[in-house]
Parts: sequence; C-alpha cells; structure tokens
Amino acid sequence: MNFCSQCGSAALSFEVPRGDNRSRYVCGHCGTVHYTNPKIVTGCLPLWDGKVLLARRSIAPRYGFWNVPSGYMENGETVEEGACREVREEVEASVTNIRLHTLYSLPHINQVYIHFLGDLKGPGAFGVGEESLEARLFAEEDVPWEEIAFTSSTFSLRRFFEDQKKGQAQVHIGQLLPPGQK
Amino acid sequence: MNFCSQCGSAALSFEVPRGDNRSRYVCGHCGTVHYTNPKIVTGCLPLWDGKVLLARRSIAPRYGFWNVPSGYMENGETVEEGACREVREEVEASVTNIRLHTLYSLPHINQVYIHFLGDLKGPGAFGVGEESLEARLFAEEDVPWEEIAFTSSTFSLRRFFEDQKKGQAQVHIGQLLPPGQK
Ligand SMILES: [Zn+2]
Ligand SMILES: [Zn+2]
Repeated sequence: MNFCSQCGSAALSFEVPRGDNRSRYVCGHCGTVHYTNPKIVTGCLPLWDGKVLLARRSIAPRYGFWNVPSGYMENGETVEEGACREVREEVEASVTNIRLHTLYSLPHINQVYIHFLGDLKGPGAFGVGEESLEARLFAEEDVPWEEIAFTSSTFSLRRFFEDQKKGQAQVHIGQLLPPGQK
Repeated sequence: MNFCSQCGSAALSFEVPRGDNRSRYVCGHCGTVHYTNPKIVTGCLPLWDGKVLLARRSIAPRYGFWNVPSGYMENGETVEEGACREVREEVEASVTNIRLHTLYSLPHINQVYIHFLGDLKGPGAFGVGEESLEARLFAEEDVPWEEIAFTSSTFSLRRFFEDQKKGQAQVHIGQLLPPGQK
C-alpha cells in the first residue's frame, strides 16, 4: 500500500491507531485506517464410490500439481456457495449433500482454507475447467501424494481416507506454521 | 475506493478483468486489479456447567446488546488463536478444549462467522474487557433472547442448547440472507 485509497495521499504511516492494539496503515491526510484481514479459500472434495476427484492446475502457483477444487471466496456468496462454484469452474461438476470437512489456517500467509465433502452424480459426471489441465478420480492407493499442490489439500485428503476407514466423518481443524515454528 | 493504493491514480474503473468473470476495481494507470473478499469474524462461546458466558457490548454497532465474544480475525493468527484472543479481550478469560461449533455466512455484508465452544476454568474465571459493559453466565432459560446483538450469536446459542439436550455436539452451518431473499 503506497497511497490512501480514500483520498489519494501518500502520507501513510504504519502505526497503532488510537484504541487499537496492532499496527495498521493510517492516512495522515484523511485519517482513514486501512485494515487488512485473512482471506478464505473455499473448496470441496468431490466423492464417488470412495474415490476423490482432483484437478491438475493449469495456472500458477503450483502449475501441473493436483488440487482439491478450491479458490478465493468471493463477496456476495456463502462459504458453501463458493465451494460449489469452484467445483463447477474447476471440474465442471455439481456436488450434492455437501458437509464441512476441514478448517485449515495458514497464519504466515493470512489464509484460511475451508473444505467440504460433496457427492458427485456419477463416475463420469465431471469435466475439465479452464484452470485445470486434467481431472481424475483417485482411490487412496492411486493419489499422487508427491504432486499435491498445497498442504491444505494433503490435509483434507489424509483426513478423508482416515475417516473413511473408521467409517466416521468429522470436521478437522489444522494449520501450517512456517518452517522453524511450532 | 477512490484512488489506486498502488500508484495513487484516480483512473479506476469497475470492470471484469481479462480472464476473470466478475467486476473488480481496475487501475487504468498501472493495471493493478483490486480484489476485495469476505472477512472472518472469529469467536468462542465460553461454557461452564451448561451455562454460556456472554458479553454486553460497550461499542457500536449494537451498543448494550449481548454477544458471543468475537471479532475480526487478524493477519498472522489461526482461526482458533483469534477466537481465544477475542475471549481474552472481551471477557478476560482463557478457554480450554476449544472445538468448532458454527460456520455462518452473511453474504450481503461479506462476512463469515466462525464460532467455537470452549470451557472456562471456573464459574468466576472471567472479567469485563474494554469493549464490554458486563459479562455474565446464562442458563438457557435466562438468555436475553431479545437483546442478542447479532443473528450469528443467536444461531450459535440456539444450536448449543439444542445439542446439549440431545447430548451430542456437532458443527452447524448457517446463513443469513437479506430480507426478501430465500
Ligand atoms: Zn487518506
Ligand atoms: Zn494504479
């Protein structure tokens, strides 16, 4: 942030506003406090017959890696609507019976992943969206673990297959801390 | 948004960027696309002996109304850390054994509430934070339902007491749509 988006002034300082307890960009001209907050990445792991549908990314970052269909939640939608939209966009599928699966924080990059599980309408009821190179159903033993795009996806996949073996679904909370932190 | 925060230009247009499918503020001078996304409000309902701890707000909006301790999630924290921070700030308590309770979207104001449940350390192990007028433990029959600050809090409270009667906790997904929408 170089300029105040309210008044256009370059007189920004990074300081603790009065009554606050952490630093924000504050405009020295018009007084506006510019807050920034974590973003939600919402997605859904489409299921069919114990298999999971993954999409191979055709965009950066992690081009060519496999991912749970997911993306930034947009204004004007619910978390579930965003997850279903991402499934439509990335693997051209609709999912039913969606249920919450994971809540995964990445505090060092200010992101929170929220993944649902959802049922596909058939073993071939999907396509390949613009941001995907390929989409494929994987049984656990076929998942390309070394080629999963993000730790949030690995977390969701591991927990799904564990729950499936136990025959019991639950919501899982996780986080990734930067290297060296615990 | 009146000025580009990157270059200070006033040449902003609200348009669909190339390769995108929804309108954003785009700078005609430097080309920066300004994304805005929903914010997370994180909180925790502190529990003791089947009772819930609520805080009466000393700030706008909804001054004087009762609320589940909660507030905007900040950069650099996990969702759970944010919830515990809000409990410390608003009712000067620490909670243990925190578990996810609700995920509640308000798409018309671009907010997502995430509420946890947590256990207090004793029936008097709390205080009154700066943004609160008062804090009090309520049994279900004593909850001031007409004076609850936000629908997200009412949702969390109703679901908590229902689950308690069933003897079974689960995660609840909800949403508030603007009047007239369904
Ligand atoms: Zn300004
Ligand atoms: Zn610009």
